[in-house]
Amino acid sequence: MSRAHPDLDSLAFLVGTWKGHGNGRYPTIEPFEYVEEAVFTPGPGKPFIAYRQRTRRAGGAEPLHSESGYIRPGGPDGAELVIAQPTGIVEIHTGEIGRDEVCFRSKDVRLSPTAVEVARVERSIRVVGDTMRYRLSMAAVGQPLQVHLEAELTRV
Amino acid sequence: MSRAHPDLDSLAFLVGTWKGHGNGRYPTIEPFEYVEEAVFTPGPGKPFIAYRQRTRRAGGAEPLHSESGYIRPGGPDGAELVIAQPTGIVEIHTGEIGRDEVCFRSKDVRLSPTAVEVARVERSIRVVGDTMRYRLSMAAVGQPLQVHLEAELTRV
Repeated sequence: MSRAHPDLDSLAFLVGTWKGHGNGRYPTIEPFEYVEEAVFTPGPGKPFIAYRQRTRRAGGAEPLHSESGYIRPGGPDGAELVIAQPTGIVEIHTGEIGRDEVCFRSKDVRLSPTAVEVARVERSIRVVGDTMRYRLSMAAVGQPLQVHLEAELTRV
Repeated sequence: MSRAHPDLDSLAFLVGTWKGHGNGRYPTIEPFEYVEEAVFTPGPGKPFIAYRQRTRRAGGAEPLHSESGYIRPGGPDGAELVIAQPTGIVEIHTGEIGRDEVCFRSKDVRLSPTAVEVARVERSIRVVGDTMRYRLSMAAVGQPLQVHLEAELTRV
């Protein structure tokens, strides 16, 4: 019942619970460091991976960000990512699956009426053994696309 | 740290883990019955409620649907809902909070390239004591807006 769907083989490298550290920067904010837990769980019997994460400020308990969504295979070497954020943002991405790597580019970023403006997001996730490195670039609040978050997590 | 934010008082009736039964219908599919677990968790220290649910076919173990997202206050008596679904669908809703009731209408429904076409969604959730009843109406695959899901859950 909880076996991963065979269509998920090319994304199996993501599956697990990951913990580690990251740093954030953007022209409009003070740089910050954070601690993260991310969980990628294969959908029971269906071809998707459920994704959720939460971060808190490094060295403290202050909650920072959280988000959740799903990754699904789409076309040869392709994947789709949908994400919802408590900040009122949803993202739809299309991506390319490489060897132990998947790179997503937003096809659509949509905002609730009170959300801060985000125009475009790119997310790359790379796994080597039990180490995951990801980078999130963002065009938001009038700024051009640029790196916002980088983190290194370990499979636990 | 895990205390709910005071801005969530008007949505506190949602918080908890809920289990129960529902039924689904739509002109394009066979009617079906399902078992559901839904969890509404206040965001630690921040004004949102994380939401996730999963259903399986009644009388069996077959997984049917799952989704996750966030509810956040927005304006007087207002709320916003963002949801991601493993079917490649994201929804942004605005809603009105009543007494033990919140009714959402989709402002935006967006689809990944391989998702089935959904045009519009309405979700009403009503809680009386420890009983939650929800109704989901949907305009999809060329059909007009109509009831798709109804369920009754109990707080556990």
